[in-house]
Amino acid sequence: MRCGIGIEARQVNELYINIDPIQAGGRLTADAMKAVIAYGDGYSVCDNCRKPNRLDYISKPPIAGFHRDVAAWLNMDAVRTVPGARRGFQAVTNTYVSKGDPVLLTSLSHYTEFLAVEETGGIVREIPHDSAHKITADATATKIEEVMREFGRVPVLAFIDHVDYQYGNMHDVKAIAKVAHHYDIPILYNGAYTVGILPVDGGDFGVDFIVGSGHKSMAAPAPSGVLAATKERAGEVFRTTTIKGDVTNRTFGIKEPEMMGCTLMGATLVGMMASFPQVKERVKHFDRELENNRRVLEALLSVTGTKILSEYPRNHTLTRVDTLASFDTIAESHKKRGFYLSAALEEKGIVGIIPGATKVWKFNTYGTTPQQAAFLADAFVAVAMDNGLPHNA
Amino acid sequence: MRCGIGIEARQVNELYINIDPIQAGGRLTADAMKAVIAYGDGYSVCDNCRKPNRLDYISKPPIAGFHRDVAAWLNMDAVRTVPGARRGFQAVTNTYVSKGDPVLLTSLSHYTEFLAVEETGGIVREIPHDSAHKITADATATKIEEVMREFGRVPVLAFIDHVDYQYGNMHDVKAIAKVAHHYDIPILYNGAYTVGILPVDGGDFGVDFIVGSGHKSMAAPAPSGVLAATKERAGEVFRTTTIKGDVTNRTFGIKEPEMMGCTLMGATLVGMMASFPQVKERVKHFDRELENNRRVLEALLSVTGTKILSEYPRNHTLTRVDTLASFDTIAESHKKRGFYLSAALEEKGIVGIIPGATKVWKFNTYGTTPQQAAFLADAFVAVAMDNGLPHNA
Repeated sequence: MRCGIGIEARQVNELYINIDPIQAGGRLTADAMKAVIAYGDGYSVCDNCRKPNRLDYISKPPIAGFHRDVAAWLNMDAVRTVPGARRGFQAVTNTYVSKGDPVLLTSLSHYTEFLAVEETGGIVREIPHDSAHKITADATATKIEEVMREFGRVPVLAFIDHVDYQYGNMHDVKAIAKVAHHYDIPILYNGAYTVGILPVDGGDFGVDFIVGSGHKSMAAPAPSGVLAATKERAGEVFRTTTIKGDVTNRTFGIKEPEMMGCTLMGATLVGMMASFPQVKERVKHFDRELENNRRVLEALLSVTGTKILSEYPRNHTLTRVDTLASFDTIAESHKKRGFYLSAALEEKGIVGIIPGATKVWKFNTYGTTPQQAAFLADAFVAVAMDNGLPHNA
Repeated sequence: MRCGIGIEARQVNELYINIDPIQAGGRLTADAMKAVIAYGDGYSVCDNCRKPNRLDYISKPPIAGFHRDVAAWLNMDAVRTVPGARRGFQAVTNTYVSKGDPVLLTSLSHYTEFLAVEETGGIVREIPHDSAHKITADATATKIEEVMREFGRVPVLAFIDHVDYQYGNMHDVKAIAKVAHHYDIPILYNGAYTVGILPVDGGDFGVDFIVGSGHKSMAAPAPSGVLAATKERAGEVFRTTTIKGDVTNRTFGIKEPEMMGCTLMGATLVGMMASFPQVKERVKHFDRELENNRRVLEALLSVTGTKILSEYPRNHTLTRVDTLASFDTIAESHKKRGFYLSAALEEKGIVGIIPGATKVWKFNTYGTTPQQAAFLADAFVAVAMDNGLPHNA
């Protein structure tokens, strides 16, 4: 089946169990699928845009209400939608970071945070993780002191990924935020792997900003996301335009420069809105997701030599494993080389592991049913058995 | 029908002739509708992302080929997709404009160009339009000389909207670009109303950048767009990352800071790609669109007192009219006040004019069939007759 010249209709999530590390939380709900069709046309949400002409004021479809709901849900004061979490980072760095300013990231920070700093001419300094691949409040304080010695001042901004993309480890944001605020450093909570996945309470964490990803974790089409702020910070990052035409004397009302005016004018936004009721519900049941994840990990651990590189027991379903001493031992002599593992899984209806990966790899069981989790567990063991790997399953 | 709690399914383009000024070129093709469903899930285009891991290198779906095709179609050297034309502006201003730098816009520039400059701390200077609401090469040269006197240097960048959003007038980009280049000023062609609507040849215009809007003019979902550059400028605006982690020594390959890495990872991009073959074809037949537009305008002009504020005959279907001396004369005494016009049109199945507007308003006939254009023409005359307005239809 095709959906345009040379474009095959994608059926990955219809035909397979997909354990791709970044795709698990972005699968659309049925309501979102209806929404992307109903609001597929370009400026489709603008039919009822009236003064003051800004996206977050539109009440039909209920965009204004969605903004209020998301702010309340995150326990923050103000929310805007953005074309991807990275555009939320960009809005914040562009507000606070000037050329030469130190910015605190971590040794597990996502590359888009680096790019958001690079664009402003800021200088990144990484808080190192500890031996368990965790970012701690102590390490944060130490790094801030180092920055003070190096730059003669504190970092202008700190990013902390609540759950990082490398290990899926959960870091102590609340303690880290406390340290940052002790030094008067505003802190951005990167919730790309948490907002829409598990409960997030910005007030409890004590953070200045929360960024979430629609296409990564809120069952929304790409590119989409949210940027939430406290009341104090909202006045800074969501400040309104002050520029004026020298000939026409035009000004531009309440448009916000960091948002570049309106952001998501159609399918992306309404897709995110349509999924939101189910997203709000699903975060309450993250324990079930961890249970499914545990089941799969136990099966993997039953294959002798497999190591879980992520913290264990898990606090998130994104998991990094080391199969150098298990599945990788087959790769060299197998006629498919390292591709035997992903090929064998695909034959069983499982996709999402990088083809060829048998050494260190990531997967994400988020959104699987208990039956699918059992199937995944059995599949890994079966591939091990088929290839004569020792196991105690 | 609903597509989620509180979200009504939009059927504007199914049930009505929609002459909304900004929506006409963004209606999805049938192929794009299939694409947004097939690629609705979050990171749906990333299934086959392999090294060097960048969106524009993915060959399945054929994203790499699409980038090459769009560059060739615009007669430019390099293209990237962006989340809306405004994000293309932002990438260019962030590359060339520093605090205090003068930037050339025009008195007809779109607000998003102002915001893109505001974000960088640049200072806008508008080239005034002439009495016919056109931006000329002469006015451009005069303004550049003024800027030189004021700032002691030339503007660092110039924006020119080939067709402006206020009058839908077509400006002499080629001559203006020549003037800009005489002063060594890079020039950005804003094609939000042209790329995907009529033929655009960047090489012939002699511009450094072309920005197009997917959701405004390329039959694509929002937010989407393209940023094209010449070879020389591509190396600047699409430069790759150089930032490095101080602890991990991480670098980030060929990611591009101005793009924030990858841009449109799903429905938006594949929607734009799916529509592209039809978009390429439709730009060849813009004469038919002008003919439909002419038919409607002649009908409006047959209502005594109506003025066309846009250049006439028209070079674009986006048109600004003045009905102060015709339709507006009824508004004061009509029981629906100014709303009678949009209400009467809606009753006939026509939407897209701002409700209540009877003085100066805009509409866009792009994409109507000859039959629909005839229907529109008859409808305007019928509303005039029903309200006893003098006419010579």
